This record gives sequence, C-alpha cells and structure tokens, in this order.
Amino acid sequence: MKENVFYGKGMGPVKKDYPDIYEAIVGLNDAVYTGKALDYKTQKLIALAIAASNSDDRAVKKQISSVVETFDTSKDEIMDVLRIVLLTSGMPPFVKAVNLLYEVID
Amino acid sequence: MKENVFYGKGMGPVKKDYPDIYEAIVGLNDAVYTGKALDYKTQKLIALAIAASNSDDRAVKKQISSVVETFDTSKDEIMDVLRIVLLTSGMPPFVKAVNLLYEVID
Amino acid sequence: MKENVFYGKGMGPVKKDYPDIYEAIVGLNDAVYTGKALDYKTQKLIALAIAASNSDDRAVKKQISSVVETFDTSKDEIMDVLRIVLLTSGMPPFVKAVNLLYEVID
Amino acid sequence: MKENVFYGKGMGPVKKDYPDIYEAIVGLNDAVYTGKALDYKTQKLIALAIAASNSDDRAVKKQISSVVETFDTSKDEIMDVLRIVLLTSGMPPFVKAVNLLYEVID
Amino acid sequence: MKENVFYGKGMGPVKKDYPDIYEAIVGLNDAVYTGKALDYKTQKLIALAIAASNSDDRAVKKQISSVVETFDTSKDEIMDVLRIVLLTSGMPPFVKAVNLLYEVID
Amino acid sequence: MKENVFYGKGMGPVKKDYPDIYEAIVGLNDAVYTGKALDYKTQKLIALAIAASNSDDRAVKKQISSVVETFDTSKDEIMDVLRIVLLTSGMPPFVKAVNLLYEVID
Repeated sequence: MKENVFYGKGMGPVKKDYPDIYEAIVGLNDAVYTGKALDYKTQKLIALAIAASNSDDRAVKKQISSVVETFDTSKDEIMDVLRIVLLTSGMPPFVKAVNLLYEVID
Repeated sequence: MKENVFYGKGMGPVKKDYPDIYEAIVGLNDAVYTGKALDYKTQKLIALAIAASNSDDRAVKKQISSVVETFDTSKDEIMDVLRIVLLTSGMPPFVKAVNLLYEVID
Repeated sequence: MKENVFYGKGMGPVKKDYPDIYEAIVGLNDAVYTGKALDYKTQKLIALAIAASNSDDRAVKKQISSVVETFDTSKDEIMDVLRIVLLTSGMPPFVKAVNLLYEVID
Repeated sequence: MKENVFYGKGMGPVKKDYPDIYEAIVGLNDAVYTGKALDYKTQKLIALAIAASNSDDRAVKKQISSVVETFDTSKDEIMDVLRIVLLTSGMPPFVKAVNLLYEVID
Repeated sequence: MKENVFYGKGMGPVKKDYPDIYEAIVGLNDAVYTGKALDYKTQKLIALAIAASNSDDRAVKKQISSVVETFDTSKDEIMDVLRIVLLTSGMPPFVKAVNLLYEVID
Repeated sequence: MKENVFYGKGMGPVKKDYPDIYEAIVGLNDAVYTGKALDYKTQKLIALAIAASNSDDRAVKKQISSVVETFDTSKDEIMDVLRIVLLTSGMPPFVKAVNLLYEVID
C-alpha cells in the first residue's frame, strides 16, 4: 500500500477494532493509487486539489507535506494546482490553501 | 487566452454587456492556465477532478471532451483521475463521472 | 406568509399529509423574511446568492424570476449579486447562474 | 454483495475494463453494508439522508425506490428522514427530496 | 422540545434578542424530531451521518456525545453510521469522524 | 481596490512570488465590488451570506468584522442575513455564524 497520508490517528484503532473496514480501505487505496496511466505524483496533486477545493485544511496540509517530502515537489508546482482551485472554487479556498502552503514550505 | 472551456453560452452576453467582468475573467484565466511548472494537460485533469468531486455534471462533461480532444487523453488517464475522486469524495460522484466518461468516449 | 418561492409542487402534499411540518415551515419562513433591518428585496437577493453559490439551478431560476417579477429588479442588480458568486465560489457556479439569468430575462 | 443501488449503467463497463476498481468497490460495499449493529434498512435510510442533504437527485430517487421496494418502507418513515434534512440542510434539499418522494410513491 | 443539541452558546442570546427566530426554531425542531415512524435514536443517527458527511466536526462531536449519553449507543452502532459516510462521501470525512468517535468514547 | 478582506497573511507572499496571480485577483476584485447597481455594503452582506452558508468560519468572522467597521452595520442587519442562511442552509451553519456574530459584536 503506497499511499498512507489518510492513515492518521484514527486508522490504528480501526485496524484493530474493525479489520473488515480496514481491509476494504486498503483494497480501495491500492486500486486508486496505481500510478499506471498517470504517475503517482500527479495523482497526489489531484488529491491535493480536491482537498483544497473543499477547504479541508487538515487534508490540504497533509497532502502538501506528503507531496513535498515524497517527490520534492516545488512551490511553483503546488501553486499551479492552487491556481485551478482559485478559478474553479473561488478566493476563500485558494487563500486558505496558499496560507497552508507557505506554512509547510517555510 | 488558452482555456475556453468555461466560456459557454453565457459568456457571449457577458462580454457584450459587462466587459469589465469579462476582462477580469480573461485575466484570471490567463493567470491560472500558465502551464509553467505543471503542464497544461495536468492542469486540465485537475480541473476535471474538482468538477467530478463536486458532482458538477456539466463541467465534468466539458472537461472530459476538452481534454480528450486537445491532448488525446486516454480513457485510462481519465480513470486515474476518477480513482482519486472515488477515494476522496465517495461513490456517487465517481459513478456519475464514470457514466459521463463512457458517454463521451463511446 | 410573504415568501412562497420554495413552495413548489411538493408543498401541496406536505400541507395535506404532514400539517405539522407545513406549519413549522410557515413559522420559519415568517421569521426569516421579516424585512425589518434589511428590506425584503435585499433578503431575496441574498437567497439568490446562496442558491447560485451552491449551483442549485432550480432555486436560482426561481429566485431570479421571483425577484424580477416582485421588485422589478434589473439585470445589473442581479449581475452585482453574481459578481460576488464569481469571487467567492468560482467560475462554474457563476457561469451557470449567468446562463439562467439571460434565460429568464430574455 | 447485498447493496447494488449504486451499480448503475457505469458499473458494467468498469467491471469489464477496470476489474481492480470493481473489486475494490465490491469489497468496500461489503464492509459498509454489514447490517451488524444497525440493520440494513437503517443503513439505507442513512444513505438516503446523505444523498438528500447533498441535493443529489439521482441518488435520492434510487435510494427511495430501493428502500421502498426492499423493505416496504412507508412514506412516513421516509418523511422522518427528510425532516432531519430540513433541519440540518435547509429548505431547498428538503423540497427537492419531498418532490422525489411523491414522484416515486405515487 | 426533545432535541437540544444545536442549542449551544449562540441560542441563549437569540432567545433573548430575537424571540421570533427562537420560536420558529423550536417549532421546526418539534416538527423534526417526532419519533413517530422512526424512533428518536434513529433520527439522531441520521443527523450524525449528515454532519459527518459534511465534515462538520463540531456537530459530529455533539451528535456522538448526545447519542451515546441519551441512548447508550454503542461504538459499533456509530461505526455502522460512519461506514455509510465512507462509501458515500469518501475517506476524509470518514477519518475525521472516526477520530472524533474515539475521542468521545475513550 | 476597495475590498481587501480576503487579502490576509497569504496574499503578501503571493504578491511578491506570483505577481501574475496577484494582478489577476486585484482585477477580479475590482470587477466584483463595483458598487454600481447594488451598493458596496449590500455586496459585502452577500459575501457574508455565502461564507456563512458554507460554514466558512474564518471568512464569516472577517466579513462580519469588516462590515461592522466599515459601514457601522447593526446586529439586526447581520441577523437578517443569517435568517436567510437558516432557511436555505439549515441550523448548523446558522448557529455557527450566530456564535461568531456575538463574538465579534460583544
């Protein structure tokens, strides 16, 4: 299972108490992050875009950290993702994500 | 102005009746689709992902058509986008987007 | 009860089959559209803004029709509402609402 | 796999073209609709509530049809679901779902 | 008025300063939580599902606390609600709600 | 550029590092807050309504502070905005915004 960015605090107990859910999530995750036609980094940037569009601060921060650490993604690349968020989802989600980007990067 | 997928029926009248809004949108659009750090195709796939996550059928259909025509994007590439939608946004937006994908492709 | 734009097809049966819900909605509605501090027209434009921000085409169309018929609201006034939608919610909900505006006005 | 309400048009091609995604969805679905602590009918009503809260007309209609056919759910039970939608999500999603309820029931 | 989970800090001042709004909310609330066709506990679980689907952390926490205290609802029952959230709304709202569940329960 | 409520922490770095985005936002902003057909205060109340409907606490607080300071807007006027939020978007976003209103006002 490549991707573990969503597997925060809550997933430990889920694995222990609800192994059927845990297994289903692992299976889902493996089917999602295949990196076949699109590479894994692009898929991660897409996940970041969706999180930012939804103003999901927690997920945005995790995805930015993850994509910077794993792929040495540049600030400019992430800003190119957030430009789309500005156009499609408006100023408030864009500004929040930009703040988180500078918080993580600096 | 590279991108014109959003410039549907409504934008003609806006250009004529509200040139200040039209100019601002053109300026915004030009600042969004720069294709600098990420290429233009990746940015379009990100726009598609956000539209699908929001269950915005009209935008999904337009983005799929546009990305297929402009970049000869494969069904597998688009499905790799929609895999992320399934994980982050659930079954209903995924199923809707998949239906639209097959509608456009076939 | 001043406002009846939401009382479409579904509300007839509700009034008949579920009078307790109907009464609660009437009470809510009366407490909402008071036209005290803000006038009724401004409140209606706010309802339109929220509907447009949510890409709720059905509600947008109803609110535009209602506000045009009841207050002789101009296209420019409605466009001033939609400008805020563009800034706060992005292009897709803006374009949809603009299309509906021209559909209703023309 | 008990639940198949989401497996509409799009799932046939997915099963054929993307068996890995299809398997993951089946696994997820099986882990979701367990009917262990809560019975299956209650879980279906919860799915209906979420669909109605999101103004997802297509899913609302499917869920109402499914829950009526499978469990002989009454109009009053479904309306008790929609009452919560009214309180938590406002009039527009409530009215849309009520219209669909009467459409399916009658 | 059975349900008072939403009547937090803000409702005291509203009752005092805006009695018309307060009365309308009480009326709405009474019409919503009838516990007629569905029992009150099921209605509360539905409210929890909608809050979780919307990633509304504050409401999720309140609803979990309330449903555990009032009905001695088990962790398994709440997890059966959250399973539907996972399927219909994706990983991020599911993980957030699971974290809150363990926070409240433990 | 009249409106600067969105230009928080993140906009300084954007101006410096991404002047093209900054210019586009300024252009967009100028085209949005024209105060032509509707006055500027009404447009700000509409922005507040959208932020409250989206449960965007940060934007709600900023918009309330801004509209109170700039236009000496009364608590009753803001509550007339939030009444619409209650009707169209339900109790949770209404209660959150009311709490923020009393926090700012008092």
